[in-house]
Amino acid sequence: MNEITMKLHVDPLLLMALREDITSEDVSANAVMPEAKPGTVDLICKQDGVVAGLDVFARVFTLLDSKTAVEFYCRDGDEVKKGQRMAVVTGDIRVLLSGERVALNYLQRMSGIATYTRQMAALLEGSKTTLLDTRKTTPNCRIFEKYAVRVGGGSNHRYNLSDGVMLKDNHIGAAGSVAEAIRLARAYAPFVRKIEVETETLEQVREAVEAGADIIMLDNMTDEQMKQAVALIDGRAETECSGNVTRENIARIVEIGVDYVSSGALTHSAPILDISMKNLRAL
Amino acid sequence: MNEITMKLHVDPLLLMALREDITSEDVSANAVMPEAKPGTVDLICKQDGVVAGLDVFARVFTLLDSKTAVEFYCRDGDEVKKGQRMAVVTGDIRVLLSGERVALNYLQRMSGIATYTRQMAALLEGSKTTLLDTRKTTPNCRIFEKYAVRVGGGSNHRYNLSDGVMLKDNHIGAAGSVAEAIRLARAYAPFVRKIEVETETLEQVREAVEAGADIIMLDNMTDEQMKQAVALIDGRAETECSGNVTRENIARIVEIGVDYVSSGALTHSAPILDISMKNLRAL
Amino acid sequence: MNEITMKLHVDPLLLMALREDITSEDVSANAVMPEAKPGTVDLICKQDGVVAGLDVFARVFTLLDSKTAVEFYCRDGDEVKKGQRMAVVTGDIRVLLSGERVALNYLQRMSGIATYTRQMAALLEGSKTTLLDTRKTTPNCRIFEKYAVRVGGGSNHRYNLSDGVMLKDNHIGAAGSVAEAIRLARAYAPFVRKIEVETETLEQVREAVEAGADIIMLDNMTDEQMKQAVALIDGRAETECSGNVTRENIARIVEIGVDYVSSGALTHSAPILDISMKNLRAL
Amino acid sequence: MNEITMKLHVDPLLLMALREDITSEDVSANAVMPEAKPGTVDLICKQDGVVAGLDVFARVFTLLDSKTAVEFYCRDGDEVKKGQRMAVVTGDIRVLLSGERVALNYLQRMSGIATYTRQMAALLEGSKTTLLDTRKTTPNCRIFEKYAVRVGGGSNHRYNLSDGVMLKDNHIGAAGSVAEAIRLARAYAPFVRKIEVETETLEQVREAVEAGADIIMLDNMTDEQMKQAVALIDGRAETECSGNVTRENIARIVEIGVDYVSSGALTHSAPILDISMKNLRAL
Amino acid sequence: MNEITMKLHVDPLLLMALREDITSEDVSANAVMPEAKPGTVDLICKQDGVVAGLDVFARVFTLLDSKTAVEFYCRDGDEVKKGQRMAVVTGDIRVLLSGERVALNYLQRMSGIATYTRQMAALLEGSKTTLLDTRKTTPNCRIFEKYAVRVGGGSNHRYNLSDGVMLKDNHIGAAGSVAEAIRLARAYAPFVRKIEVETETLEQVREAVEAGADIIMLDNMTDEQMKQAVALIDGRAETECSGNVTRENIARIVEIGVDYVSSGALTHSAPILDISMKNLRAL
Amino acid sequence: MNEITMKLHVDPLLLMALREDITSEDVSANAVMPEAKPGTVDLICKQDGVVAGLDVFARVFTLLDSKTAVEFYCRDGDEVKKGQRMAVVTGDIRVLLSGERVALNYLQRMSGIATYTRQMAALLEGSKTTLLDTRKTTPNCRIFEKYAVRVGGGSNHRYNLSDGVMLKDNHIGAAGSVAEAIRLARAYAPFVRKIEVETETLEQVREAVEAGADIIMLDNMTDEQMKQAVALIDGRAETECSGNVTRENIARIVEIGVDYVSSGALTHSAPILDISMKNLRAL
Repeated sequence: MNEITMKLHVDPLLLMALREDITSEDVSANAVMPEAKPGTVDLICKQDGVVAGLDVFARVFTLLDSKTAVEFYCRDGDEVKKGQRMAVVTGDIRVLLSGERVALNYLQRMSGIATYTRQMAALLEGSKTTLLDTRKTTPNCRIFEKYAVRVGGGSNHRYNLSDGVMLKDNHIGAAGSVAEAIRLARAYAPFVRKIEVETETLEQVREAVEAGADIIMLDNMTDEQMKQAVALIDGRAETECSGNVTRENIARIVEIGVDYVSSGALTHSAPILDISMKNLRAL
Repeated sequence: MNEITMKLHVDPLLLMALREDITSEDVSANAVMPEAKPGTVDLICKQDGVVAGLDVFARVFTLLDSKTAVEFYCRDGDEVKKGQRMAVVTGDIRVLLSGERVALNYLQRMSGIATYTRQMAALLEGSKTTLLDTRKTTPNCRIFEKYAVRVGGGSNHRYNLSDGVMLKDNHIGAAGSVAEAIRLARAYAPFVRKIEVETETLEQVREAVEAGADIIMLDNMTDEQMKQAVALIDGRAETECSGNVTRENIARIVEIGVDYVSSGALTHSAPILDISMKNLRAL
Repeated sequence: MNEITMKLHVDPLLLMALREDITSEDVSANAVMPEAKPGTVDLICKQDGVVAGLDVFARVFTLLDSKTAVEFYCRDGDEVKKGQRMAVVTGDIRVLLSGERVALNYLQRMSGIATYTRQMAALLEGSKTTLLDTRKTTPNCRIFEKYAVRVGGGSNHRYNLSDGVMLKDNHIGAAGSVAEAIRLARAYAPFVRKIEVETETLEQVREAVEAGADIIMLDNMTDEQMKQAVALIDGRAETECSGNVTRENIARIVEIGVDYVSSGALTHSAPILDISMKNLRAL
Repeated sequence: MNEITMKLHVDPLLLMALREDITSEDVSANAVMPEAKPGTVDLICKQDGVVAGLDVFARVFTLLDSKTAVEFYCRDGDEVKKGQRMAVVTGDIRVLLSGERVALNYLQRMSGIATYTRQMAALLEGSKTTLLDTRKTTPNCRIFEKYAVRVGGGSNHRYNLSDGVMLKDNHIGAAGSVAEAIRLARAYAPFVRKIEVETETLEQVREAVEAGADIIMLDNMTDEQMKQAVALIDGRAETECSGNVTRENIARIVEIGVDYVSSGALTHSAPILDISMKNLRAL
Repeated sequence: MNEITMKLHVDPLLLMALREDITSEDVSANAVMPEAKPGTVDLICKQDGVVAGLDVFARVFTLLDSKTAVEFYCRDGDEVKKGQRMAVVTGDIRVLLSGERVALNYLQRMSGIATYTRQMAALLEGSKTTLLDTRKTTPNCRIFEKYAVRVGGGSNHRYNLSDGVMLKDNHIGAAGSVAEAIRLARAYAPFVRKIEVETETLEQVREAVEAGADIIMLDNMTDEQMKQAVALIDGRAETECSGNVTRENIARIVEIGVDYVSSGALTHSAPILDISMKNLRAL
Repeated sequence: MNEITMKLHVDPLLLMALREDITSEDVSANAVMPEAKPGTVDLICKQDGVVAGLDVFARVFTLLDSKTAVEFYCRDGDEVKKGQRMAVVTGDIRVLLSGERVALNYLQRMSGIATYTRQMAALLEGSKTTLLDTRKTTPNCRIFEKYAVRVGGGSNHRYNLSDGVMLKDNHIGAAGSVAEAIRLARAYAPFVRKIEVETETLEQVREAVEAGADIIMLDNMTDEQMKQAVALIDGRAETECSGNVTRENIARIVEIGVDYVSSGALTHSAPILDISMKNLRAL
């Protein structure tokens, strides 16, 4: 993760998470270790997967004490194996103990998402379809989760409601028609925005293409309808399909020929990757 | 969730989450709906499960616009069925659209945790063992997730490093012995804290009981060792076991007779419960 | 301005501005008015122009005291005349006095920008060229200034570095070529981003079009070069020109036929529109 | 600018401004430069003027990355010429690109104010009258703008409503009389506050002097009335005049002999000084 | 306390204090009262004194729940007697219990300060000397403590380092002389600032008067020296004495004839006034 | 104080306190010292007592300027004597001047509490009774005050409403009985919480013991009743007494034999310890 993003957006979230876990002090550590005491601890992978979030993991410790050092034996995006030593953290043992849980909570979740995304993306390999995430991220964790999706080999859909236009049935209803919704959005939105429209019928697809939609989402369509829609659009707009896509059912998308498939499961259903800190020893 | 907790701790997190999703404005909604427009939308369950977080769901909308009204047809802790209408939200359609994703992201995750917890707790029914959560929660979501565990029928372990004492191998090593670690903790910690000690051998269990530990965690022991430990402790301290406990393997714990079993999976591995907002119509 | 944007992004800035102007208390008002005292005051235009920011103006007072009432006699975007009564504010006189300066500081600046933009946009009327703002906004005032540009009849360029891609000479240099920069950006950026490239020669323009740039910025070109570039692009990408465009020199752009012209002057050089609060009287 | 002021008040505003411009990440820079890459860039003046805000400019970059180095070739208050190289910034090119706009937005505005103030102050040279700013500053930019006024050779009026007493017609009305307003203010305000009174007639001036006002503002008076007022006051209080004073009309003030003249135009109408970053090259 | 001050400066501090006392939830109240339950409770004075902070006390409860009602039987500044019922608070019993401690912590301290100040001020009655506070306030409580001093009958010295000029020995040393320090301060400080100088000898007093100091602090002088200083100054500047002034020793100041005497003890040594909430009953 | 606690909880409070004291800049220092100037100053004790808060004192200066150095000649918990040099602070003189008041405001209060606590604790020496603080701390200063109590030799009661359960008469009333209140609390609270119950009669004491209360508070009882209660409890629960315990009356508690005595006076009535910074000299 870029240092600027870390400074502006990650640090405040990590500090909040640390304050959530330490509302006054780490009573256990402070009771038995009144003074700083140097030590080192291993970061061990307990499950095969794809690692993501190593910088975030390290940042938790350096935020608590800038003298903490983290040596990495792998990089974000690497496939790691059960039992593999991923890193060594060296510093005041109290810092190692007090930061451990928050650091792991981030690393495990981010790696879990990267692992799940890598598996999904593999199922699309060789096809023209790109895997996308959604806004179904954990509240106040989007910056971590969207990054993890990229590490896993997925691409990002819009970041939020402000930086992408997506016209759904209710927007279309309010505007009166697909064409009018597109016209209003183009007039209102910053001109660098692509306009995406959600369509449920071939008629809507046709109207959207003609009104100049940049991206057409095929919603609630059968595979057959989607194929017809792709043919109808014929490259005049990008195409996306969505709807409960998971590891189990994504393979069927390959055939349809859409440009993008988005899956909320990447961020809301990826199980964590089990990783732990072991072998803490005094120096 | 208690109104005071909402005001002090939930509202700031919800506002942050909304600002994460709307960094300037909801471009799509504002493009097609320049003026407020009253509407109503249904909250529909798409999967069987246990609901948790209805107040949080509603709060997202009332924070955006205090005139939004939410009528509930179920309560936190209720078992809900696929297709069931859980609530109706009425207000400015732009508020309904702009708040939808954040509100659902919370409700789905909290309900997912409650559902998973209910299933785990059911497997302990009839036994003397109580199901506990851990600190393996999503960063900056602990208040929601620990609440959801309670709704699901679990109990909460310590909230964080400041409000509970847990002496692990490294604390014991720093202190020199189990007994000395307990002595130091009792001298240092606020006197209302119970002292919990992590033990790995029967010898340590014995030492912990004699030193007056309030709670003894049995770590990395075989089922047989745990049974012996429970017998050895004989009610002089509470007992807890832990370690990769999931829906699949929790049943075996019943036999052992520990007072508590804690499971990180409750908060880090519960899949979401699928819930959506449907049938938005103008009024 | 949309209520949701107000709640999430405007209110915190207004409160900060009020705290900048009142670090402890309004000593003058509190010295002479120990108790609340109802009064009313007129908002008077002192110069012809276009008004923008009425909601922001009113919000300053309602944030200080929700019982303050503002009745408007004009709307954002209206042309107002010197001497015209624009609104009446009614409430506790201390609130009227303490909020006056911050409320006017916003309203005057926003109206100044809307006025200047309206004048610039008028000079493009009848042409195919749309007027855009830039990121040359006052720090921590962008949400107000970009809104004022829209009220004045301009359109918004990207909101910030996160929601739009603009590849400048340094990005192209780092990537190695225009084509490679575009390829990298398309691979990295959320797929809803349009890719804009800054070009300085016809050769670069050609390369950008062929690499699939969505928008091509013509930078540091003569009018003649720009015309050639527009011809070369021939609708395959949108075109933008920039560079010290002001009220005085914008007319010449019409001939060139670019789709967009951006002007930093809209937000960094628009003089304020003089507006004041007059005739405060007790009720 | 003093380091303490920077730490306590400037840094939080700069970070906010950076977060306004980078809500998640700088997509363009991160797409083409995945790794840090050292470079250097010149700060070039594009217009004659007075520079102010060099420390603020530099701070934007060091906040993003403390390893960024800025070498200055001029100091705040210096007159700079078109084409002059003002500074060189050296660091990670991504930091130079991502911080550029915010750093320049501050520097250009502050230098614009210093330039305008210097011009106004020059017109008062040789007279006994000192040029003052007002509270008509850009919201959340007061600390920068009041500093720039000082750099330009002006003096500061009160910082805000809390640190200066100014009794206007409404305060006087509420108190019942000029004398009573002064009495109440003296009794209520911290004793280190000077009491300033706004007067519109010679009668009010007389009353204010006799009641012991420290400063008398002559409001809405003709030049002739102001001269009479100055004569009447005769050094028993300081005198200030105000009211739409700009570069174009300030010269006439010299004759009147007031101690101070305040001008909102210094901060609300000064055009920016055009400054840019050029010649970025890798090292 | 003024509503505007409450909104801008008091509310954030009260919310922080509430979050200090409730880091997640009020476990005791929530355990036994899962639902809101109306109740009422008396505010009882347990010691004679002067009350200050009733609005702050009430605000704690209305911040937690805007439906809480507080009926007062006394006003800030009133002398209250042991056993007197000062107010009745009515609302959800959980709100009454959860807010009690924070509300009382403020009210007791503020009333303690008002009580102590009233006693000190009484000892100056009939003299020309006004009692002042200092900056020796509790961190993050200044707005409450300075208000309480006023309620008790004292006046406020400068609020902080930004709104008053006080030239001490180190400032004088840095400037080179008393006269030069005054000259520099007058040139630099906003013109509404009075200039105060700390003097330790009659020579310095003379120099300060001649250089035009507005206020002269007599520091570390004997009573006799102070009398001579007052005579020397002869009304050309205001005079202040300071230095470990308490209830026990303030009377001697009366004779000296200084205009002001400041006492840190008002805010750093006033014992609390004992007040409690009693007789909570369900409605 | 532990570095982690400093980073997470102390720094934000110190910065707030500094911003309270410097809302824009230190006008006096900046007027006479436009440039940094190295200097050194002594920290001198002006009264015998126990020192607490040296790290906090130093942190104020290093937060303002990380190059400030503080050399200590004593440690927290040491008994210091009038006239003793406690530390030397070296750095930019402006930093020494601007930070002095906030640094001393903390150090004096914390040392005052430690001194008072040491005196109270001494009166319990040789007895089995431990001295406790309460939640009667200064708002937004709890972390400092609870630490100072420990330095003085006292122990901490619960930190706040979230980390300790205390069932008072109103909780018992709401639950219906002592036993039921305990049952509800045990079911609801995190299992690491001890349950404390406030009792006013021997009957309630008996009920509490039998219901398994961990701690029994003896409230409003005569010494004789308390002795009987202790005998009745007979080690089956810990015992605490409370109620207006001060230096003057604590000795009588020794006889009663309770385990704990809590005193609000430790934090709400301890006078400050007089400490000052003297002998500032340029280097």
